[in-house]
Amino acid sequence: MGDGPAIDGPAVQDTYPDDVAHCYGCGRLNEVGHRIKTRQLGDGTVTEFTPKDFHTAIPGYTYGGLVASVVDCHSTGSAAIFAMQRGGKVVGSEPSPRFVTARLEVDYVLPTPLSPMVLTGRLVEIKGRKATVDTHLSVDGIVTAKGLAVLVEIPEDRFRARS
Amino acid sequence: MGDGPAIDGPAVQDTYPDDVAHCYGCGRLNEVGHRIKTRQLGDGTVTEFTPKDFHTAIPGYTYGGLVASVVDCHSTGSAAIFAMQRGGKVVGSEPSPRFVTARLEVDYVLPTPLSPMVLTGRLVEIKGRKATVDTHLSVDGIVTAKGLAVLVEIPEDRFRARS
Repeated sequence: MGDGPAIDGPAVQDTYPDDVAHCYGCGRLNEVGHRIKTRQLGDGTVTEFTPKDFHTAIPGYTYGGLVASVVDCHSTGSAAIFAMQRGGKVVGSEPSPRFVTARLEVDYVLPTPLSPMVLTGRLVEIKGRKATVDTHLSVDGIVTAKGLAVLVEIPEDRFRARS
Repeated sequence: MGDGPAIDGPAVQDTYPDDVAHCYGCGRLNEVGHRIKTRQLGDGTVTEFTPKDFHTAIPGYTYGGLVASVVDCHSTGSAAIFAMQRGGKVVGSEPSPRFVTARLEVDYVLPTPLSPMVLTGRLVEIKGRKATVDTHLSVDGIVTAKGLAVLVEIPEDRFRARS
């Protein structure tokens, strides 16, 4: 991450309540998932992720679905961090809110090499239960994808009936 | 699929040239991938896909990254089918063109149950090497996600150097 601000504090996904921590993309309780981890970085967020050899598109590059997945979970995690910040709370001090995605946009600016990627998140807007997060995904310092996601905080009593 | 038009012909992903058939989402040569299959259906396209138990978001629902992945590969496959149709060619008669995604938009209209899903594709526009495909993803007949993707056909001599 170079000489920028230090990555600060625990991953927000490690502070989700247990019953919403099974996401294949980022749930700490999903034993076979990607376990994406998003942390505060200055006034933004950061996720570092290394794809597996088999996450290929055209040989040597990461398939678009994984890029979208990582942008998606990074965005929900970022929204949770920004919501904690708005409330004057420190990530890790209590269970964090859990956002889900209402809309996801990904621009594939360049093919993404099948290599470690860094995603940085920036808050565009947070209003009520809705947040908009802007993401840059880069490999070796070169931005290969840009994301814009609209996230909505789950009310605590919803989505928990189906099993 | 009810009483609509019959699903017609081979999956387009089974007609991709070997060196571009390794996509984790839809490559027939990716041994651990999703192997998404897209076929012609009337003047549109269709993909049927069943998520695994571990592809969960909130328990009981499919995580957003998989929804995006399936929309993505369904869209690239649909673009290939529409390009074949434009050229007056039948899918399976020769190797199909290979599209990659330039832009992906997904609207998560409702939570998508962790159940078999059907995606239908419709050509919005095809112009030169660029196609735009509109997708509806449904479970049990209820549309839970909508996609819009811009796809670009890979020139035959590109993307094949990196390995």
